[in-house]
Amino acid sequence: MEQMNQAPVQKEAFFQLSYGLYLLCAKDGGKDNGCIINTVIQVTEQPFRVLFTVNNQNYTAQMLKEGSAVTLSVLAKDAPFSLIRQFGYQSGREVDKFAGRNDPKDANGIPYLKEHSCAVISATVASVSVVGTHTVYVADVSGAQVLSDAEPITYAEYLSTVKPQKQQTEEKAKGYVCKICGYVYEGEELPKDFVCPWCKHGSDAFEPLS
Amino acid sequence: MEQMNQAPVQKEAFFQLSYGLYLLCAKDGGKDNGCIINTVIQVTEQPFRVLFTVNNQNYTAQMLKEGSAVTLSVLAKDAPFSLIRQFGYQSGREVDKFAGRNDPKDANGIPYLKEHSCAVISATVASVSVVGTHTVYVADVSGAQVLSDAEPITYAEYLSTVKPQKQQTEEKAKGYVCKICGYVYEGEELPKDFVCPWCKHGSDAFEPLS
Repeated sequence: MEQMNQAPVQKEAFFQLSYGLYLLCAKDGGKDNGCIINTVIQVTEQPFRVLFTVNNQNYTAQMLKEGSAVTLSVLAKDAPFSLIRQFGYQSGREVDKFAGRNDPKDANGIPYLKEHSCAVISATVASVSVVGTHTVYVADVSGAQVLSDAEPITYAEYLSTVKPQKQQTEEKAKGYVCKICGYVYEGEELPKDFVCPWCKHGSDAFEPLS
Repeated sequence: MEQMNQAPVQKEAFFQLSYGLYLLCAKDGGKDNGCIINTVIQVTEQPFRVLFTVNNQNYTAQMLKEGSAVTLSVLAKDAPFSLIRQFGYQSGREVDKFAGRNDPKDANGIPYLKEHSCAVISATVASVSVVGTHTVYVADVSGAQVLSDAEPITYAEYLSTVKPQKQQTEEKAKGYVCKICGYVYEGEELPKDFVCPWCKHGSDAFEPLS
C-alpha cells in the first residue's frame, strides 16, 4: 500500500468541493436582510430539513436564532454580478439591501428572489451550532417551490463566469482595484477617503493595478 | 408585495441545490469501508474544518464516532459508474468493498482514491449530530491534497451523464429494471430469487420496463 505524504493542508484541495449559490434572507424586527451563501444542503427528507452555514461576522448570522424564519433562493445561471454585489458585498448593518426593491415575500413574510432564481425554500431555524468562525444552522422546511426551469448556478461557475476577473480589469486601465469586490478605480492616485461604490469598503481595501 | 402561495413542499425544489460527489472512507477495527456521499462542505478555515452528512442506515455512518479518522476523496468528471456501483450500491456489512483493490492510504491508515478523484481530504470526526434519518459530522482536517488537475464532478452531472438513464435502458428490451441502481434484467419474467448483480437487492427492488 502506498502511504500518503504527511503533507500539510493544501488550501487548493478545498476548491474542489462543489457548491451552489444562494440568497439567504431573514428579518430582524421590521428590517429585511439577506446575504449570499454557498453552503446549503438537504439533510433529511422526513421531515424536510436543510442545513446551511454563515460566517459569524455576517449581520444575517447575528439575526438568526432558533425559531427564526428564513428563505433560501437558489440562484440561477443568469444571476448577474450586480445581484451578488447588492447582497454579498455590503453589510445590512450599514445599508438597507432591500431599499427600492420590490421582492415578493413568503408565507412567513420573508423576502425571496423571483428573478435570477430557480427555486425557493422557506424554513425555520431548528438548531444553531457555532463551529469556529462560522455557524451551522439546521432548519425545518415549511415550503419549497420551483420558480423557473432555469438551471442553478454552481459556485465554480460563478467564480469563472460571473465574478469580475482580476486579469480583465487589470488590462483596462491604470488605477486601483478593490480586493473585496473587484471594483476598479481609474486614476493615478486613490483619495484616502475614497469609499468603494460597490462594497462600501474604504481605501485600505484597494491595491494598485499591476 | 406579492404573497407566496402557502404551497406545500415541492420535492423538485431540492433538486436545485448543488452538490459534488465524494467517496467517504473509514476503518472499523481492521476493516476498511467506504460509501458515496454528495454533501460535503467546508465550514471553517482556521482551523480547517469540513462538514458532511451520511444516512444513518449506512454502515459507514455506524462506524463513525468522535475521534474516527476519515478520508474524503473528491470524485472527478471521469469517475465511471462502476466506481459508484462498487462503493454506493452495496453495503460494507455484506461485502468487503476494498477486496482486490490496491488503494493508497493516508497518514491515518485510511484508504482513499487516487484515480477518478481530483483531491483528498483527511480528517478526524470532532462532532456527531443526529438530525433525523441522517447524521451530521463536523471533522477537523489534518491533511488535504490536490491529486490531479481534473475537474470535480457535480451531483447533477453524475445524474445526467454517469448514472444509467432509465429511458435509455427502457428502449433496449422487455424486462425489469432495478429501482435502486438501474440494472436491467432482460426477459419475460423475473425469477423471485433473483438478486441484482450490481446492488445485491432482491427481486422486490425491480419493476417492469414499461
